[in-house]
Amino acid sequence: MKITFDDKNYFADMVGSTDGLSRKEFDSGSKAAAQALKGFHKLSDDGVYGFAHLPFNQDLAGIQSLVASLKGSFDSVCLVGIGGSALGPWAVDCALRGPHPVQAKHDASNPRLVILDNVDPMFLEAALASMNPKKTIVLVVTKSGSTAETTSAFLLVYDWLKQGIGAKKAPSRVIAVTTEGKGDLDGLAKREGFATFYIPQNVGGRFSVLTPVGLVPAALTGVDIGKLLKGAAAVNHLAWNGDLSVNLPLRSALIHWLLWTKKGKTIQVAFPYSNRLWGMAFWFRQLWAESLGKAKDRKGNVVHVGQTPVAALGATDQHSQVQLYIEGPNDKLFSIYRVNKFDTVGKIPPEKLGFESFDYLAGQNFAKLIDAECRATAAALTENQRPNGTYTVDKVDAEHVGALFQMLEFETAFAGELLDVDAFDQEGVELGKKFTYGLMGRKGFKEYKTRMEQYEAKRKSL
Amino acid sequence: MKITFDDKNYFADMVGSTDGLSRKEFDSGSKAAAQALKGFHKLSDDGVYGFAHLPFNQDLAGIQSLVASLKGSFDSVCLVGIGGSALGPWAVDCALRGPHPVQAKHDASNPRLVILDNVDPMFLEAALASMNPKKTIVLVVTKSGSTAETTSAFLLVYDWLKQGIGAKKAPSRVIAVTTEGKGDLDGLAKREGFATFYIPQNVGGRFSVLTPVGLVPAALTGVDIGKLLKGAAAVNHLAWNGDLSVNLPLRSALIHWLLWTKKGKTIQVAFPYSNRLWGMAFWFRQLWAESLGKAKDRKGNVVHVGQTPVAALGATDQHSQVQLYIEGPNDKLFSIYRVNKFDTVGKIPPEKLGFESFDYLAGQNFAKLIDAECRATAAALTENQRPNGTYTVDKVDAEHVGALFQMLEFETAFAGELLDVDAFDQEGVELGKKFTYGLMGRKGFKEYKTRMEQYEAKRKSL
Repeated sequence: MKITFDDKNYFADMVGSTDGLSRKEFDSGSKAAAQALKGFHKLSDDGVYGFAHLPFNQDLAGIQSLVASLKGSFDSVCLVGIGGSALGPWAVDCALRGPHPVQAKHDASNPRLVILDNVDPMFLEAALASMNPKKTIVLVVTKSGSTAETTSAFLLVYDWLKQGIGAKKAPSRVIAVTTEGKGDLDGLAKREGFATFYIPQNVGGRFSVLTPVGLVPAALTGVDIGKLLKGAAAVNHLAWNGDLSVNLPLRSALIHWLLWTKKGKTIQVAFPYSNRLWGMAFWFRQLWAESLGKAKDRKGNVVHVGQTPVAALGATDQHSQVQLYIEGPNDKLFSIYRVNKFDTVGKIPPEKLGFESFDYLAGQNFAKLIDAECRATAAALTENQRPNGTYTVDKVDAEHVGALFQMLEFETAFAGELLDVDAFDQEGVELGKKFTYGLMGRKGFKEYKTRMEQYEAKRKSL
Repeated sequence: MKITFDDKNYFADMVGSTDGLSRKEFDSGSKAAAQALKGFHKLSDDGVYGFAHLPFNQDLAGIQSLVASLKGSFDSVCLVGIGGSALGPWAVDCALRGPHPVQAKHDASNPRLVILDNVDPMFLEAALASMNPKKTIVLVVTKSGSTAETTSAFLLVYDWLKQGIGAKKAPSRVIAVTTEGKGDLDGLAKREGFATFYIPQNVGGRFSVLTPVGLVPAALTGVDIGKLLKGAAAVNHLAWNGDLSVNLPLRSALIHWLLWTKKGKTIQVAFPYSNRLWGMAFWFRQLWAESLGKAKDRKGNVVHVGQTPVAALGATDQHSQVQLYIEGPNDKLFSIYRVNKFDTVGKIPPEKLGFESFDYLAGQNFAKLIDAECRATAAALTENQRPNGTYTVDKVDAEHVGALFQMLEFETAFAGELLDVDAFDQEGVELGKKFTYGLMGRKGFKEYKTRMEQYEAKRKSL
């Protein structure tokens, strides 16, 4: 496993002192970084937060034996889940089976993952129509056991499954991933007899990709989950190290926090130069936004902090977003994700067509081209004083993907310490949920229905 | 065609005067809006910018007759293009054939669109492996005729096609969309005998979805392109009207510009509650970013303006981004895209499972649920003083999709006038392109290779 972090273009030497960090500014942050490390290490040792332990404490055998017993009987895994229950599985699938919609053909020896992460009726209808209930394993994932989008979609999918293969057989084709002994999904799973895997109580949804949330769909679709954890474990060895030149996630957290809070970089662009890492950018978008977007700090002060993460894809978004990135307000920092070795270099056919715009590329290869674009964009950003850094993953395989997850989770946890916010809650989404419950007539939420009516009445009066 | 724009939650009455507009602030902008309308109307009448004329001046018959002659002979359209040559076609495909990866099965009577909009070698390999050259039409799209990502990928795809069906037949299966009489693609197309369609000189890539760039792939995949244009034409009737209560795009441009420049909303979240409109959010992301992200205004003053567009999907991103949107810095405005009538309401099966988190939803429908989530999120944003507006499209069909394109293009053009920037160029991406050319050894770009070497040497010394 080899991931490097090139941070030179974050510094004043390369992008000037208005927008880049001086060595002095960086050094003056090292005390805060040491405290962040110590603070999070204690929370982790005390078991308050569990993600750091995930590479070591997993019942892989349980997952693997279930997968072995089902093997060959399905060509699709239908995952019903949203947010942290969907983004990790999607990131793994995109990286290791390939980005949609050009994945390898699915069949019983190479099943695909279909993720139902929305309640758009046209989307759900199309998704079900694309699968055969006789060849589908349904995976229902919700930590609380009661997420409305997931319970409603599960009602649909379970009914579809029962109609397709019979009510008697259906439960044997459902796997539930939820919290043990808590929430309605666990109760339902026990009564119906679904296979069940549990999410540790001290691991939040957006940090759960290396729990059964991410491991079960990965194993079902042929990913080596031992390697995912192996890569993640390797990161732990860096992440508890006090030396900032060794501890990549602490170093990147410190730099990103300094650029954000001292240099006004209120937006972070996650910019992989790899279609396979695009899902990872969306997974990171949740991790960073929900963990660090907070109204209050841990002392209860109203702070309204949060750096807005943006997902961009290189080279594609050079033709969509880079105009803004280069010329617009200098309010962004860029996290470029570069792949060192592609599985194939992608030879460009050598035949010359007799036109210059084609011929200079003939006989070269796509790995060289995309890497040239990546370096050229970093250089152009730098010449325009836009701070940027580059993570290089040696290759896109299970080990590196696991490592990248763990590294970004550590970085996020450290950033939470630096900001002094609780990176593991998400109070801000509760009000919208309650309004939805009110509108859908859920028991106990009548007051929110009333508040919605008052809001609508006020709007009408304007 | 019916699109409405609910702007109440953008105003101080609903979100307070720190973050929302007072009626006075809005009224004081009406003069600027009138000037913007006048200014852009003149540029449009003078033919400087051409997109406004597109609904009326198209040779649909030429496209339709080519499509008719090919019909039944292909199950895939392989579009080679990037940026404005890919995002419009993707937005149409996502809206009207369905969002990836759960589209209806493709066959010769219902062909799909495969878009090669990157040079990642693993992505290109997987994409080609997913298609059969005997059943594929290749569509190569570049306005300049020389975009490196497109010319290189075309070399690959053309070679694949020639190997699959023979060098003699291959040209009859290629369609080129480019600029007439300019650039190497037109030269190549003429020599090889590709069918060719042209992009008007005065229509930039990101405004080109209603030229052959968007119309040819749409027609090939069964979209009624007459209806796309019909919807767009209906918007023109609003967009030249001086009355702000009638002229939706001018009104939304004014409100978004005021919130951005007077209330610090430096980020705009394009937030469709519909998987089918997700592609549209990405298309808009390019339109808004490239058109309005500028270093200089039209007088040559250095301004570094640009509102950062972010694409989010409802209800999905309620579980990923809304925590930040509600609690983080109040630096965003929200453009929600709501669908009035889904093609299917998506009945949730009525059977009660005996668990409350499931049972209150049983027997209801997904159209109601997603709409409740949409309204609940708008209400929660509003209660937290986050300005938000809602476009409601009556349904997702070709007419409304065409109208939405035209409306957002007008809004962007008007916003460019309000900001006094040239919304139709993109100088900022040139440097990165030149560095890439230098690295790839293109003739005439040696100085950029040298500059890259100097940059690398400086980095090495740090």
